[in-house]
Amino acid sequence: MAAHPVSPLAPQDYPTLPAIAGARLATGHSGMRYKGRDDLLLIELAPGTKAAGLFTRSSMPGAPVEWCRKILGNAARGLVVNAGIANVFTGKAGAAAAKATADGAAKALGGKANQIYLASTGVIGQLLPAEKIVAQLPKMQKTLQGDGWAAAARAIMTTDTFPKLATARCEIDGKPVTINGIAKGSGMIAPDMATMLAFLVTDAKLPTETLQALLKGANNQSFNCLTVDGDTSTSDTVLLFATGAAGNKLHDKPSDRALAGFRKALTQVMAELAQLIARDGEGAQKLVTVSVTGAQNDAAARVIARAIANSPLVKTAIAGADANWGRIVMAVGKSGAKADRDKLVVRLGDRPVTAKGMVLPDHDEAAATAHFKSQDVRIGVDVGIGKGKAVVWTCDLTHGYIDINADYRS
Amino acid sequence: MAAHPVSPLAPQDYPTLPAIAGARLATGHSGMRYKGRDDLLLIELAPGTKAAGLFTRSSMPGAPVEWCRKILGNAARGLVVNAGIANVFTGKAGAAAAKATADGAAKALGGKANQIYLASTGVIGQLLPAEKIVAQLPKMQKTLQGDGWAAAARAIMTTDTFPKLATARCEIDGKPVTINGIAKGSGMIAPDMATMLAFLVTDAKLPTETLQALLKGANNQSFNCLTVDGDTSTSDTVLLFATGAAGNKLHDKPSDRALAGFRKALTQVMAELAQLIARDGEGAQKLVTVSVTGAQNDAAARVIARAIANSPLVKTAIAGADANWGRIVMAVGKSGAKADRDKLVVRLGDRPVTAKGMVLPDHDEAAATAHFKSQDVRIGVDVGIGKGKAVVWTCDLTHGYIDINADYRS
Repeated sequence: MAAHPVSPLAPQDYPTLPAIAGARLATGHSGMRYKGRDDLLLIELAPGTKAAGLFTRSSMPGAPVEWCRKILGNAARGLVVNAGIANVFTGKAGAAAAKATADGAAKALGGKANQIYLASTGVIGQLLPAEKIVAQLPKMQKTLQGDGWAAAARAIMTTDTFPKLATARCEIDGKPVTINGIAKGSGMIAPDMATMLAFLVTDAKLPTETLQALLKGANNQSFNCLTVDGDTSTSDTVLLFATGAAGNKLHDKPSDRALAGFRKALTQVMAELAQLIARDGEGAQKLVTVSVTGAQNDAAARVIARAIANSPLVKTAIAGADANWGRIVMAVGKSGAKADRDKLVVRLGDRPVTAKGMVLPDHDEAAATAHFKSQDVRIGVDVGIGKGKAVVWTCDLTHGYIDINADYRS
Repeated sequence: MAAHPVSPLAPQDYPTLPAIAGARLATGHSGMRYKGRDDLLLIELAPGTKAAGLFTRSSMPGAPVEWCRKILGNAARGLVVNAGIANVFTGKAGAAAAKATADGAAKALGGKANQIYLASTGVIGQLLPAEKIVAQLPKMQKTLQGDGWAAAARAIMTTDTFPKLATARCEIDGKPVTINGIAKGSGMIAPDMATMLAFLVTDAKLPTETLQALLKGANNQSFNCLTVDGDTSTSDTVLLFATGAAGNKLHDKPSDRALAGFRKALTQVMAELAQLIARDGEGAQKLVTVSVTGAQNDAAARVIARAIANSPLVKTAIAGADANWGRIVMAVGKSGAKADRDKLVVRLGDRPVTAKGMVLPDHDEAAATAHFKSQDVRIGVDVGIGKGKAVVWTCDLTHGYIDINADYRS
């Protein structure tokens, strides 16, 4: 299934996701690109399911992103995802292909086209052969089942080397609630392929606006903490569906104490998926966690954390197990966010390396190198001017990234 | 001299730079890092020489940058440059080392320390052994000569694989004027090493403020059009010295018509040096010119051009001769600058690839691939909304970059 060797950072085993009342799944094979594997996902959602979504900030969004933006707020009856062709930069024909897919799914599931959410991932600039998707939907409708999550996570993969699944349970008003999630992504944009996609389904009962706010809050602590190569996809999509089958009371306020457990569980599922994407970053040999504290505010802290996590020089140093902390100083300096050079504390693993604008006299280079040789590299930076903080996950930059992205079609 | 093979993009031969009245050069060997090559440059400048400078925007600037900022505006009596140690993130001891170097040069040349400009390039975080520099200065003073430019360009190299020199002549008020320039840089920040440095000397007679304005204008069309990996050095420094020996009339206004030839010649020298740095980008196999037109304004055009030039996915596609124009669309989309997807025209070489938000039906993939196989790749983008334009030079992202930066100390 995977064109490239499975990432050394892949989890030892995958969680089994429970069925969620109100959601059934099926996968299928369109034949548009991949051979010998399913490349279509259909999720049927019970009438009245609420939907929330977050999308790429790219000014070149794909047709499915534009479709979802248009119908966002509508109740969701279904979701169709295909892998292989992203339906991006395809003009009016691309918009028509998205509409045709939604029409086909509405017909197969019973419902309206504007209740069908869509996502496509794969090559940019090729027209999506919607007819190949639509032809499979009736067959797929007949095989819908509640526990189809493992197959679903595999069907949406492109250059991913392993499927990404996460689940969590919580309670709202004493009622048990489940959140399932699957994701794909192997670069913020993968070779020739676009995108990071994540789909979450819960049986919680929540109003649409509340759901959107909760998704946004959790996204800020999960997918927004992720970077592989700093390249933003034209198709990034995170969708959260709430079937309401759990039967909890309706809470309007996203900050309601009754929703504390839900907020935590949602963030946990999304953060797990985000970290799985970092672990499957193209060519990744190491998971890198960058923690910034002491910044002017949280936004500034994130700017700094991303500057470190996206720096080719920091990422190659990690790949080579060269504990070159000077490059971290460089990245803080170039970030544009306020920082005090003479108060800056850089940490490698748990050990501080700098103080008063220079390296500590007892800096242990061997210990730092040993930490950089591990599969779980932690970089900490305290900027010394405020209380802002942020965490960003990324991976190292290796020959594997060049292999995948430069030599892909050779 | 070079730790890595000479770039395949190195020029066939180097220009011979003429002597400039009022400037004499000498190189020397400090022994602080490199063996078997000179690593020190001393330029003596005639009393009354005017100086202009531009420096890194990093919030973690090196001690020599802080020194130059402090004395900028003073007449220049000399310049001292060392390669091997950048004197960055070295605390108060680093500032003292800069001061000691200036004191030593003032003594050797006759003059004041606050008339001695400084630049250091090399490892971040190590203290500069100023005494090793100062010890060489009297010897170097005895070997000062007008035509030491070739040796000077070599003495300031770190991971550069070839020296970078350029020269141009022009006239002011009918008086012949010469501009010489040398530069170093092989990444916006090189492995373990910092920096892009450029030093320019002219015999033109110009007031300090005018000189500064002319430098800024030319820089905007040269070094500011350059990116290798998007990582900004802690030491970036461009200095322009005007000895005044040409004896032209003094012109106050940078936009004065009498200075048109000078402006053009200065921009030409600096642009040549900037392109030489791109040609020596770490691991570079191809020079890449990104031209953006039709943006909201020139600043927006530059944001877009840089997003393309810094995109790891665009740069690896070029390395692999994969004419993957979808990645260029992606980079425009992620830039944050305004763009109209449905009016976007992407050009590879001279051929347009897209129109009306999709690929042209007669797109010639083979011709595009052939262009991407050349050593001189040209990417054009018309954003379709305004008159802003910009050009950025960069290089491809290859295994060589990873080799140099990840495997450097192994």
